[in-house]
Amino acid sequence: MTNKEKAIQMHKEWNGKLETISKTPIKTREDLSIAYTPGVAEPCRLIAKDPSLAYTYTMKANTVAVVSDGSAVLGLGNIGPYAAMPVMEGKCALFKEFANVNAMPICLDTQDTEEIIQAVKHIAPGFGGINLEDISAPRCFEIERRLKELLPIPVFHDDQHGTAIVVLAGIINSLKITKKQKETCKVVINGAGSAGIAIARLLLNYGFTDITMCDRDGIIGADYPNLNWMQREMAGVTNLRHAHGVLADAMQGADIFIGVSAPHIVTPQMAASMNKNAVLFAMANPEPEIMPDLAKAAGVRIVGTGRSDFPNQVNNVAAFPGIFKGALEGRARQITEEMKLAAAQAIAGLVSGQDLCEEFIMPQAFDPRIADAVSQAVKAHIKN
Amino acid sequence: MTNKEKAIQMHKEWNGKLETISKTPIKTREDLSIAYTPGVAEPCRLIAKDPSLAYTYTMKANTVAVVSDGSAVLGLGNIGPYAAMPVMEGKCALFKEFANVNAMPICLDTQDTEEIIQAVKHIAPGFGGINLEDISAPRCFEIERRLKELLPIPVFHDDQHGTAIVVLAGIINSLKITKKQKETCKVVINGAGSAGIAIARLLLNYGFTDITMCDRDGIIGADYPNLNWMQREMAGVTNLRHAHGVLADAMQGADIFIGVSAPHIVTPQMAASMNKNAVLFAMANPEPEIMPDLAKAAGVRIVGTGRSDFPNQVNNVAAFPGIFKGALEGRARQITEEMKLAAAQAIAGLVSGQDLCEEFIMPQAFDPRIADAVSQAVKAHIKN
Repeated sequence: MTNKEKAIQMHKEWNGKLETISKTPIKTREDLSIAYTPGVAEPCRLIAKDPSLAYTYTMKANTVAVVSDGSAVLGLGNIGPYAAMPVMEGKCALFKEFANVNAMPICLDTQDTEEIIQAVKHIAPGFGGINLEDISAPRCFEIERRLKELLPIPVFHDDQHGTAIVVLAGIINSLKITKKQKETCKVVINGAGSAGIAIARLLLNYGFTDITMCDRDGIIGADYPNLNWMQREMAGVTNLRHAHGVLADAMQGADIFIGVSAPHIVTPQMAASMNKNAVLFAMANPEPEIMPDLAKAAGVRIVGTGRSDFPNQVNNVAAFPGIFKGALEGRARQITEEMKLAAAQAIAGLVSGQDLCEEFIMPQAFDPRIADAVSQAVKAHIKN
Repeated sequence: MTNKEKAIQMHKEWNGKLETISKTPIKTREDLSIAYTPGVAEPCRLIAKDPSLAYTYTMKANTVAVVSDGSAVLGLGNIGPYAAMPVMEGKCALFKEFANVNAMPICLDTQDTEEIIQAVKHIAPGFGGINLEDISAPRCFEIERRLKELLPIPVFHDDQHGTAIVVLAGIINSLKITKKQKETCKVVINGAGSAGIAIARLLLNYGFTDITMCDRDGIIGADYPNLNWMQREMAGVTNLRHAHGVLADAMQGADIFIGVSAPHIVTPQMAASMNKNAVLFAMANPEPEIMPDLAKAAGVRIVGTGRSDFPNQVNNVAAFPGIFKGALEGRARQITEEMKLAAAQAIAGLVSGQDLCEEFIMPQAFDPRIADAVSQAVKAHIKN
């Protein structure tokens, strides 16, 4: 049986990867009178007087909504809310398995920005945080910004920030190996959707200055036609040399390449044109922008992908469980830039000393230390 | 420790009565590649082609949203969405414990009818059914009606229909004991909110003809001031004698009294004024309209309450788990009148023969046969 066939068979057997269970058995009249009526009235009364007690008496304390409109799912595109469910259930399962955070998949039958904002706002009271997922750009930026303003709980678009955090973690460790400085590295990011833009923003906040973004039509600059509002904003803070050209032009002499774009669009020649001690993260799914063996043969020193079957998996599963674990435990009202930077450093810090080498810049996805390290880093930066 | 203290302490320990768990461990790369990326893409692709496959590959098949705006919670009134959470979590726990149905609490931060309708519509794709809960009348009628029109999945306001079903079940068995005919019984319902109105409607559909509804100002008739639109509709099909007066007037000579109103408002004199072989369900919470011993002493033959510490507990926990179990298993698009009548008969049918007596007209809440009996009855009436 192929992996595809196995995935289909198992999803059929599971008939939903997630289930809700009662923490307490309800087998007797007394159970019922404590967990339900009449006993349940007591915590209700207390919360009615002081809504912050919802964190003491309800699952809000440790529960995230994983919200998608199905508009930009994995490499599958706009497949809608029904088809997005298996991904959201999987994400919810990861929240629980990696960080013991409860998570519920919420797939929305609208792709209208205002309707999404209203729906999420309205369902928020029972949740301690909102993980936005697989919502297409540029709507995702507006939806996240508005919800952060509207809600007193953390709102985190994982495709943006989870990806940016793990990329930065990998870069931090790569710089230790290549002994380059962030201030002088030439960085190329290919893909100007939610992930590419969030990566660029976090790298700028971390201290990188020389970033060039590309999309399928080439290098993005202020005079580039057809930019959305967020790409236009990015054009103002990247490509400071005002370069023009295609991806191959951008990659010449680059120290770091980050691909969040499409399979096999980086040729060995393009990889070979990079600077010495180059770092290349090819994170397109399921096939990377260039296969690791080709990139290495072309002279790239450190190669990462999104895949678990190559070294250096740069996957946001290292970030989001711990991010929300920390935010929930510390009752953060927002996930701030400081938390994201600290999370990246915490992930990077898990590979150090003699372990750190070209083939091992990221902790393994199943390293049990990750969620705690990330959550501690997040909690250390909560300023409510 | 009192029960109230214990309820508070346990809710604090639980910190949420519900949790979400993964049905499958995610401990290895292979687990991840089947349950999440890249394997998850396969069921996604299949559902994108045929959305009905969401019932095969996702938890939609067996998951209900328990939705409230916190406007009419238990006997507590309008305590809002945060304070409503313990009740909704309890309800979700009951869904799982009694019928193995997954349920998620969704507490809404709006009490605007249109906003509630839109929010529920938008989150519906991931759910196989919507259980509306503790939403005040008359908004609950409009919200349910509109959502039934908008959504291809069952929408069920439990405060209305769950209550009506268990009341009818109790009445069916009471009539067997008192040997009265539904067509000639004089029924009085005190309380003209969501439960009272739904009970009246289901009894009319079952074949009762002589129903008088009262609220705190007395008997409801077409010329009664201050009726909401639904009460006005009910005034057209109840109180056919055009009686006026207070509850005590209505109860004179009544065969059946159903209270969904307030504690201790039925006096022994009022109970004594009922017809011979009277049936009285006093379901106000936590204290009934009249205590069972007083009603019995006044000559009432069969007494039921909502409480588990008296005989004949008339509680909707006998209905909703099996209703949704059946609807989900049979993929019903609606919960119809026929299903509700069949559910009531199925519940009543669990107490029969020599067991059936004045003190035992309803199956025990924990009778493990209930959910299956109700679900079979529902499934037998699915006409999609």
